[in-house]
Amino acid sequence: MNASSITRQLAERIVDSDPLTDTRVVQLARDGVLDWLASAVAARDDANASVMITALGIRMEEQKYGHSSVLGRSERLGALDAALMNGYLSHALDYDDVHESVRGHPSAVILSALLAEAEERGASGAEFLAAYIIGIETMCRLGIAIGSRHYEEGWHNTSTLGVIAAAAACSRLASLDVETTVQALGLAATQAGGLRVHFGTQVKPLHAGLAARSGLMSMRLAESGFKGSLEPLSGSLGFFAVFARGQERPEKATENWGNPWQIIEPGLWLKKYPCCSAAHHAADAALSIYKAYKPDFRDIDSITVTFPPGGDAALVVREPVTGVDGRFSVEYVVAAALADGELGLSTFTEEPIRPELRVIAAKVQRRYDSELAAAPGAMPKGRFAILKVKLTDGTTYVERVDCPRGAPGRPLSSQERLAKYEDAVQGLPDVWHTLADRVMQLELWNDMTVLISDH
Amino acid sequence: MNASSITRQLAERIVDSDPLTDTRVVQLARDGVLDWLASAVAARDDANASVMITALGIRMEEQKYGHSSVLGRSERLGALDAALMNGYLSHALDYDDVHESVRGHPSAVILSALLAEAEERGASGAEFLAAYIIGIETMCRLGIAIGSRHYEEGWHNTSTLGVIAAAAACSRLASLDVETTVQALGLAATQAGGLRVHFGTQVKPLHAGLAARSGLMSMRLAESGFKGSLEPLSGSLGFFAVFARGQERPEKATENWGNPWQIIEPGLWLKKYPCCSAAHHAADAALSIYKAYKPDFRDIDSITVTFPPGGDAALVVREPVTGVDGRFSVEYVVAAALADGELGLSTFTEEPIRPELRVIAAKVQRRYDSELAAAPGAMPKGRFAILKVKLTDGTTYVERVDCPRGAPGRPLSSQERLAKYEDAVQGLPDVWHTLADRVMQLELWNDMTVLISDH
Repeated sequence: MNASSITRQLAERIVDSDPLTDTRVVQLARDGVLDWLASAVAARDDANASVMITALGIRMEEQKYGHSSVLGRSERLGALDAALMNGYLSHALDYDDVHESVRGHPSAVILSALLAEAEERGASGAEFLAAYIIGIETMCRLGIAIGSRHYEEGWHNTSTLGVIAAAAACSRLASLDVETTVQALGLAATQAGGLRVHFGTQVKPLHAGLAARSGLMSMRLAESGFKGSLEPLSGSLGFFAVFARGQERPEKATENWGNPWQIIEPGLWLKKYPCCSAAHHAADAALSIYKAYKPDFRDIDSITVTFPPGGDAALVVREPVTGVDGRFSVEYVVAAALADGELGLSTFTEEPIRPELRVIAAKVQRRYDSELAAAPGAMPKGRFAILKVKLTDGTTYVERVDCPRGAPGRPLSSQERLAKYEDAVQGLPDVWHTLADRVMQLELWNDMTVLISDH
Repeated sequence: MNASSITRQLAERIVDSDPLTDTRVVQLARDGVLDWLASAVAARDDANASVMITALGIRMEEQKYGHSSVLGRSERLGALDAALMNGYLSHALDYDDVHESVRGHPSAVILSALLAEAEERGASGAEFLAAYIIGIETMCRLGIAIGSRHYEEGWHNTSTLGVIAAAAACSRLASLDVETTVQALGLAATQAGGLRVHFGTQVKPLHAGLAARSGLMSMRLAESGFKGSLEPLSGSLGFFAVFARGQERPEKATENWGNPWQIIEPGLWLKKYPCCSAAHHAADAALSIYKAYKPDFRDIDSITVTFPPGGDAALVVREPVTGVDGRFSVEYVVAAALADGELGLSTFTEEPIRPELRVIAAKVQRRYDSELAAAPGAMPKGRFAILKVKLTDGTTYVERVDCPRGAPGRPLSSQERLAKYEDAVQGLPDVWHTLADRVMQLELWNDMTVLISDH
C-alpha cells in the first residue's frame, strides 16, 4: 500500500460506499440519531448555551436568522453556528454515545455538523443516515490508525478525530467527488485540536461543538474551491505523524472499511447514565448492590473501586462540589447510586452535592490491579470495575462489572432507549414527541429541512 | 517559580503592563499596523476571499451585516468572520511581518482579531496599540518557551502560538481581569492547530485567519463566562507539554516580559518582498548581483544557494508552476530577481511562470553548509544564504547575505515602508490614502470604529 495515497483511499471509500443495503446498519444508525437527540435536548437549558450565543455576537433579534435548529431551543441559526451549539449541547451532559475504537464520542460531533448542514442544504433521510454511518466509520478507523498514545499524551479524541469525521460525513452529504473530499479531510485535519487538560470542565463538550463547526466549515471550503495539501494525513508532516508521533498506522484508516461497519461491531455505546463512561462499570455495580441490599449510608465503613491501571484516566474529579463536577467523579457516581438507587438527569445538576452524598463519596478509594484480566466481552476492551462496599459490622458486598449496561454486548432495550428520549424531551412542544416516530423511519424521510421544524 | 501558576502569571502581565510609556515602542507598533494593512490590502482580490465568504454562508445581500472591515474590500462583517477574512488576507501573499522569536507571523493573527473586535466594540487607538504590543509580547514569549521542536515536528507556529496571542491581545482590549484572561488563554490553547503539511498552499494563510477568529472567540467566550481549566498552559497535559513534548520551558513565557519589549528587540521584520522570509537572503543577494552585473540569463551556467542546514525548511516548492507557487521557491525567487531586477506584487501572481524564468530556476541548486557560522547580526539567528552565479565563460559572482533588507538590523526606511503601503492601496478609495496618516498618529485616535470606515 502506498502511504502517499492514504487520504485519497479514504476519500474513495467515503464517496463510494453504500452502507444502507444492510438493514441492521440502518437500524443502528436510527438508534444513534435518536439517542443523540435525547442527549442534546436534555442539555437545552445549560447556562453555557446562552454564553455561546453571546460570544458569537448573535443579538436577540437575530436568533432566527438561519435555517438550522439548536436542539430543544428556539434559535434558528446558520449551519456553522448551529453545528457549534449542537455539538456542545449533545456532549454537555456526557450522556451521548461512545465508541471504543474512537475512545471518545462520535455522534456529538458528526451528527451536529450533519443535521445543521442537512437542514440548511436539504437532503433526504437516507442520504443523512448514509453520511452518518460513513462519518462513524471514518472516525473509528482513524481511531484505530492513530493508536493509544494520542489520547495518553493529552489529546481529546472526540474533537481531534471528530473534526475529520464530521468533514467526511458532510462531504458525503454534499456528494463531493474524491478530489474535493481529500481537500475537506485536509482542511479538517489542520483544524484538529482539543486538550484533555480541560477535562472536568465544560470546555470538554465545547470541543465537540468546535469540531462539528470546523468539520462542516472544512467541507464548505473544499466545496467552494479552497485547496491545500494533496496528502494531508500520512507522511512525515501529516496529521498522523504529528498527532501520534510514530505509533500511527495510517493504512489502518481504510483497512476492513465497512467489513463489518464499526456501527455494528464493536458498535455504539448508548449511555444509560448521564456521566462519564469510565464510571459506568462502577455505577452498574453500585446500583446492583443498592437493589439487592439497600445499605444505609450511615452503616458504610469503606468503599473501594478497583480499575485496571489507567481505567479511570477520564475520571479527573475526586472531590466534586456540584453534580456537574460529579459527572467525572467515580466517588460521586458510586455515592449517588448507593444512596438513591438511580442515576438520572437530576443526579448531575449545578446544585451543590447533598451532605450525605459527600459523606459517602469521601469513603471511596480507587485501586488498580494490573494482574487481573478483563472479561473477553469487556467494554471498552480491557476495562472493568470491582466495587467493594464494607459495612461497619464487617459485612462486605462485592460486585464486578466488565461490560456496563448500554454498552455493545449489553445494549439498552428499545423501551429503555425510548424512555431516555421521552425523559429528555419532557416539557417541549409536540413536534419533539412525534419526532421519535420520524427518526424510527428516517430512511424514508424526504426532506431534512422539515424533520424538526414542521415548517 | 511555581509551574502551576504560569498561565496566571502570564495573564497578570497581559492585564497590568503599560507598554505605551515608551515612545519607541509606540512608533514600532504604528509601523507594524501600517505594514500589516499594506500586506492585507495587497491581497484583497485573492480568489479565496470569495471562496471563504461562500463557505461562511454569507449571501450577497448580507455582506454588510456587521461592523468590521474586510481590508480593502466592501464587505462589513461580524467581528469573528472579519477576523477570519483579514487573517487570511494579511498572510495570503506572505508579505506580512515575521518575528524571530515566533518563527512565524505575529501581526497577521493578532491585528486581524484586534481590529475586528475594536471596530465592533469601540476602543481608542491607544488601547488598540497597547493590546497589539502585548499580543506580540505574548506570542514571542510563547515562542521562546515552546522551543524549536514544535515547528520541526510539523506545527505552524503562526497559528498555534497566534491563537493564544490573539486571545491575549483581545483580552487586553476588552479590559478583562486576570481570572478571565486565564480563561481566554486556556480556551485559545485548546483551539491551537495548523499543520505545516499545507505549506506551499493557501491553507497556510488560512491558518492565520482561523487562529485570529478562534483567538477572538476565546476572549468572547471567557468574557461571557465560559470556564475551563485554571492551568491550561503548564502541567503534564497542558499546552506546552502536548505541543513541545519535553522541550518546553514554560517559565520563559513571562521571563524578561517587556524588558525589552519583543517588538523592539529582536523586533519585527517588515518584508521588502511578498514571498517567504526564508528566501529573502537569497533574494537580496540576487538583486545585488543583478544591480552590479546585469547578467544575461542565457549566459548563466549554474546557480547555487547555500543555506545552513534546515534554513530552507519553509521553502517547500522546488518546481513552481505559477508565481503563487514561487512564493515558497528559492529557485523562482532567485530567477525572478536575476531576470527582472525586482521582486514585487506582480512577481507572485496566479499566472504561469514565464519560460525564461523557468530556465533560470532549473539551474538553481540548493546546498547546505553546517561548518559555516552565521554573522552575529544574522536574522533569524544562525541563518544566511550564499548565492553563487556561474556564467558559461567561467565568470562567477558570489553574494552572501546574513541579514536581509527589512529585517531588524537592516530595517526599511520610512519612505520604503510608505511606498509599500502606497503600492498596496493603489486603486482604492480615498480613505485608504489618508489612512496612513491616521495610523502614524494612531495613539491619538479616539474611536477605532471609524478608523477605516469614515462613517
